[in-house]
Amino acid sequence: MPKISDRGFTMPPSPIRKLAKYADAAKLRGIEVLHLNIGQPDLLTPQCGIEAVKQFSDSYVSYSPSAGNLSLRKKLANYYKQANIDISYEDILITTGGSEAICFAYYSILNYADEVIVPEPFYSNYYGFTTETGARMIPVRSSIETGFALPQIEEFEKALTPRTKAIMLCNPNNPTGYVYSKNELEQIRDLVKKYDLFLMCDEVYREFCYDSPHYSVMNLKGIEENTILIDSFSKRYNVCGIRIGALISRNKEVIATSLKFAQARLSPPSFGQIAAEALLDTPADYLRTSAQEYKERRNYIINELNAIKGVRSPMPKGAFYSIVELPIDDAEKFCQWLLEEFEFEGSTVMFAPGNGFYTGKKLGENQVRIAYVLEHDKLKKAIKCLREALKVYPGRTIEQ
Amino acid sequence: MPKISDRGFTMPPSPIRKLAKYADAAKLRGIEVLHLNIGQPDLLTPQCGIEAVKQFSDSYVSYSPSAGNLSLRKKLANYYKQANIDISYEDILITTGGSEAICFAYYSILNYADEVIVPEPFYSNYYGFTTETGARMIPVRSSIETGFALPQIEEFEKALTPRTKAIMLCNPNNPTGYVYSKNELEQIRDLVKKYDLFLMCDEVYREFCYDSPHYSVMNLKGIEENTILIDSFSKRYNVCGIRIGALISRNKEVIATSLKFAQARLSPPSFGQIAAEALLDTPADYLRTSAQEYKERRNYIINELNAIKGVRSPMPKGAFYSIVELPIDDAEKFCQWLLEEFEFEGSTVMFAPGNGFYTGKKLGENQVRIAYVLEHDKLKKAIKCLREALKVYPGRTIEQ
Repeated sequence: MPKISDRGFTMPPSPIRKLAKYADAAKLRGIEVLHLNIGQPDLLTPQCGIEAVKQFSDSYVSYSPSAGNLSLRKKLANYYKQANIDISYEDILITTGGSEAICFAYYSILNYADEVIVPEPFYSNYYGFTTETGARMIPVRSSIETGFALPQIEEFEKALTPRTKAIMLCNPNNPTGYVYSKNELEQIRDLVKKYDLFLMCDEVYREFCYDSPHYSVMNLKGIEENTILIDSFSKRYNVCGIRIGALISRNKEVIATSLKFAQARLSPPSFGQIAAEALLDTPADYLRTSAQEYKERRNYIINELNAIKGVRSPMPKGAFYSIVELPIDDAEKFCQWLLEEFEFEGSTVMFAPGNGFYTGKKLGENQVRIAYVLEHDKLKKAIKCLREALKVYPGRTIEQ
Repeated sequence: MPKISDRGFTMPPSPIRKLAKYADAAKLRGIEVLHLNIGQPDLLTPQCGIEAVKQFSDSYVSYSPSAGNLSLRKKLANYYKQANIDISYEDILITTGGSEAICFAYYSILNYADEVIVPEPFYSNYYGFTTETGARMIPVRSSIETGFALPQIEEFEKALTPRTKAIMLCNPNNPTGYVYSKNELEQIRDLVKKYDLFLMCDEVYREFCYDSPHYSVMNLKGIEENTILIDSFSKRYNVCGIRIGALISRNKEVIATSLKFAQARLSPPSFGQIAAEALLDTPADYLRTSAQEYKERRNYIINELNAIKGVRSPMPKGAFYSIVELPIDDAEKFCQWLLEEFEFEGSTVMFAPGNGFYTGKKLGENQVRIAYVLEHDKLKKAIKCLREALKVYPGRTIEQ
């Protein structure tokens, strides 16, 4: 039997999805699983997006242009103008989710064994995509003590090597919920300029900042040709399944190169593009209401978590995630145990084990990532489950 | 300004799409462009697929499982049973088009600088995906003289090196239209077995064989764990825009590894999966009628082409492509000239230049790939345009 590749072997499984089979088994046993493991919100998709798809009247579903439908690109450029980001539709490629935008950017800027510096903990799939590309992800540690603020800029500078090609940020951050300030981003800007690096920033949670406005890397002056923005419709309008994202850069070479990768895969999904274009007409009120809802959920769950003995979570400033420290031996064991051996009043809770968001084997071992995307009653149940679980989990490190 | 990657630089633009801007400009001048460059058919999509999408009634568009919806995988396994291919739904991953299935397979089996042997001319994006993966494509030449039959098996053997990991076929073939016989496939089987290679086969045109039935690599005995099937709904039901394909293998390690890459990109498109699942209920008559229609178009256009002085095309046995030799200096120049400087009665014709389907710079220089996916009247017009164009094109090599 021929062997799979080293890349395939070292490719990490998703920490968010790898316990899915245990959740499925729990559900088959009749247990309600409260999914705090995955950023799949429960808010309604704006009806205009669904309706547009239902109006489809072509006689067949054809390829779209590889860069995405022109009408969508133009309308999206207009969305950015309203968000105070001045770009042209020619700076935009429509991609199959934000995931594909990351891949195209990586392919376009990274050679084999090149390095990308990323604050740790990080969205685990960045690590997956780096592996896929044959490049290396170099972590710079942020800490729960500072609420996962940007690490000291000296730490980034120490991580630089001749192979460093880019710094990658996620702002608002998945998995920590931290929102980088203008001042922090300007420090990064100076570094990027000094060493002529690319700066990639994933801003898919832009609309979900709870305590202060968002500042986009696209507004950093002097690094216009270094900056690549990753975006997605998924979370903004709760349409994770349409698989429509965008790669945005004022660097024409990056766009032209990424377009070659886009041509190879032919086109982004047609139905998703129809939905996305219509969703850009969603009344502004929808996003305000969504952000308010998440803010209330955040306030509730973070306060409840910190009220449990030995549990610690910073107050996230944006997105809908937090990295939470638990009084346990090993988060992966705990998460699996929750699904396989625990229930409280017919329910259990599912988290994403923390170590999947770090490079080191031991890092984040007593942490989980939560996504507070469920309605209040379910969050309440989830907190109850966690409280009870920490009383009886064999690997608990303190007694409740 | 930071530099793009070597991979980005060497990534080939799509020969099928790179002249698109000249076609757009011609259309703006009011000229009808007859698209024989791209496999975008004009047959109706079965209504059941579109209707299923219109029935969408969830309150939001959620992620699907990374492997695709279970109901779709099960129903697709049943389709294969009917096509005499015995596989389980567990051998199937749903992908974002056949393109993504190729990428996942490449990532799973190829290390950096590993080699894949492919008969040449080949579907140009195979070359793109190999470049993306950091692997190398090793061509083995097939010839217009034999109608692009499988090259002698000794040629494959000569191309083997210690880095050879796989042989890749496309059957029915894009771009040549050749359909490999059981006997040819058994020769490949013996080679694959002898050297313990992977055998990847793209069978997206399975239902379009005009002169003899299709034989799938999944039915080759003794290499069950070496074989990876690439498939897609796009051409079968004329739904290129839904972006739903499949990666199929009885090698559990290949499926488990590919699933990790699938998890990193989260999920295939939801609307596309809904359409695909419903399309599997399409009456068998639809595929028979489609195949009959393409067969008539084939007969018409290939005979007409061969009737033009200096033009030569083998009679393709399947798919809806042919590699056609023209009495011209350079197909790329000719194709661009057709769009920029030529028109006949308000129309012109667009082909894909042949050299994009070969590795060598000079190969296929006087060839184009045609896709005979347009209705009879348009094919007739296209032939007229070509006839007239060959009379006046400055780089013609014979006089009409």
